[in-house]
Amino acid sequence: MSIQINRKMLSFAGVLGLLAIGIVTIVFATPAVSTTGKTQSHDRGPDSCTPVIIAHRGASGYAPEHTLGSYSLAITMGADYVEPDLVMTKDRHLISRHDNELGLTTDVANHTEFADRYRTQKIDSNEVSGWFTEDFTLAEIKTLRAIERIPDIRPGNARMDGAFQVITFQEIIDLVKSLQISQRRTIGIYPEIKHSNHFKKLGLPMEELVVNTFHQNGYLDSDAPVYIQSFEINNLKELKKITNLRLLQLYDSKSLEPADQVLLGANITYGSMSTPEGLAEVAKYASAVGPDKSYIIPRNADNSLGDPTSFVADAHAVGLKVHPYTFRAENTFLPEEYQSDNPSKGARGDLTGELQRYIGAGIDGLFSDQPDIPLRIRGPCL
Amino acid sequence: MSIQINRKMLSFAGVLGLLAIGIVTIVFATPAVSTTGKTQSHDRGPDSCTPVIIAHRGASGYAPEHTLGSYSLAITMGADYVEPDLVMTKDRHLISRHDNELGLTTDVANHTEFADRYRTQKIDSNEVSGWFTEDFTLAEIKTLRAIERIPDIRPGNARMDGAFQVITFQEIIDLVKSLQISQRRTIGIYPEIKHSNHFKKLGLPMEELVVNTFHQNGYLDSDAPVYIQSFEINNLKELKKITNLRLLQLYDSKSLEPADQVLLGANITYGSMSTPEGLAEVAKYASAVGPDKSYIIPRNADNSLGDPTSFVADAHAVGLKVHPYTFRAENTFLPEEYQSDNPSKGARGDLTGELQRYIGAGIDGLFSDQPDIPLRIRGPCL
Repeated sequence: MSIQINRKMLSFAGVLGLLAIGIVTIVFATPAVSTTGKTQSHDRGPDSCTPVIIAHRGASGYAPEHTLGSYSLAITMGADYVEPDLVMTKDRHLISRHDNELGLTTDVANHTEFADRYRTQKIDSNEVSGWFTEDFTLAEIKTLRAIERIPDIRPGNARMDGAFQVITFQEIIDLVKSLQISQRRTIGIYPEIKHSNHFKKLGLPMEELVVNTFHQNGYLDSDAPVYIQSFEINNLKELKKITNLRLLQLYDSKSLEPADQVLLGANITYGSMSTPEGLAEVAKYASAVGPDKSYIIPRNADNSLGDPTSFVADAHAVGLKVHPYTFRAENTFLPEEYQSDNPSKGARGDLTGELQRYIGAGIDGLFSDQPDIPLRIRGPCL
Repeated sequence: MSIQINRKMLSFAGVLGLLAIGIVTIVFATPAVSTTGKTQSHDRGPDSCTPVIIAHRGASGYAPEHTLGSYSLAITMGADYVEPDLVMTKDRHLISRHDNELGLTTDVANHTEFADRYRTQKIDSNEVSGWFTEDFTLAEIKTLRAIERIPDIRPGNARMDGAFQVITFQEIIDLVKSLQISQRRTIGIYPEIKHSNHFKKLGLPMEELVVNTFHQNGYLDSDAPVYIQSFEINNLKELKKITNLRLLQLYDSKSLEPADQVLLGANITYGSMSTPEGLAEVAKYASAVGPDKSYIIPRNADNSLGDPTSFVADAHAVGLKVHPYTFRAENTFLPEEYQSDNPSKGARGDLTGELQRYIGAGIDGLFSDQPDIPLRIRGPCL
């Protein structure tokens, strides 16, 4: 019911907005404003081409991840979707970080005023030491600056250490909606809810807040340019009940169990979720699956690519799109046959070669730190 | 008269736009749209802080210059102004390149279909070989891809070779207007008209087109967030007659003469334009001067910084703002005492140290390839 009302309000505002913006456009000679996530007639939508290119933590191969810099680079390169990981602050703000530990990707260690927040705790099954987002308010986190996670592999990114703040989920939505105007296309948003169970136990559940944020911003239905991802199962099932937005089940290594399932003693591994029967279960709540890329083409003992499995066909058979992760251009991440001879740590190899093998295996989309590379070879487009 | 009409139309569109956008804002919880260049109540304007930070060719220290990537990085870092150099295509489109020769910063050399466009010509006083923008239509230039100008010094930028197109002046304006929404501040535009006299001789004059483009986009008066720069004199004087937008006189080395003055046999050197009398002449048509930074603090024989000259005081005495160029973080561009010991070609030194000397000398603004660095130390703000 509340969704019905929102949709009417959106239409009303949309008509008025387009009227005024039409006039503004004539006078200013600027492009039309796309205020909702909807595809307009002049637009290329984020699902128009195959494979769909998802900028992993932004264009994180070129700028510190999860910053306005990495997201704006990804969008101006032409990425279809931008991917933020989401964690929670003490005062219930969704922020964009891969980890709830802040020392890995911010300068928090240099902030003596936060030295007493350093602690050790168990997150899911792992003991972690550092500074945790759940111990900080958003205002406190806004005093920190983002730094590069892997400066030895990406010294070009580390040049921008200190240039950007940590940003909220809403700031990413604002950036996307703004850049939709100049880029004249609809840009998708593809968040991952991190450590769902951990934050739930702390009384800081994220699922409803993520959904409400999307709904309040006009992203409402399964045709909105959105996917919500998680490595857990039960939170995706909960999400299915409160939103029509599309959901994606992430897959970690085959032997591992989703964190929420460990606590339930359910004995469900990602491997069991990748069988035809397992995929059929996932298809009941998800539109797509995001496997580690080895599910699709495993590596041989010498680190070269082996033969494709039946994963893509099995997923397609139950109606699931397949969006594997993570495609990265540096040698250290590439299969043996696509690495370059350059011995320097940050040297890049032939990501295009690896991508062509996966595109040949029939994937529908992919997560990449260097979205420009798959963008130059992908197609066809509708 | 035509400016009067434009202003009325702008106000009308502005009211309607703000009305509709106000409603959209409530529903979408997104920030207010700033459709003109004007500063809104919630805004920080581009002249609010001292010194004003101008992102030179975008954040060209981090991404290939003059691309949507370098401009969006600069804006999300917080730069006050973005600086595009402008040259002209055969079919009268203003595009953003430092040179009218395309081989330096695009992959044109790999396009065999353009091999027969390679030629040698005299531009101003220099013989140049290559592919020239005046021999290409915009559609042809849009098939090229930008590459890094100095890949040996900025290998981190060269990772993005091929990721971006060459863009038009209008695309930069569109980007700026779009990002003003999410950044909630007014972002200035600071174009340089390159090789004015050369293009004029070809029947492709740029001045009126630059002014018309600004006026059509709502940038009309001396309070608009705009400066137009040139190394020549007479085109600035012509601009003064057709626009109220602010103008900046650039200064090359003291012994050189502006290209238009050479042709007139006027015997005016940049050195003569830097005396108190010369500056008084410039103040008749320009709001600001953009000297090579050595005009303000020359270097000693050992490449260390010397003592400040009276240039800033002399310029201020006749009401001119002083915006020197170009501040760059890599050792090769730094004074001796601010270079680091790292011998690698791309190594960076202490740009902050150099900047503090210039800020101490009373400059009002500065051009930098790494705008994040001056942004972290500048102030005060209004």
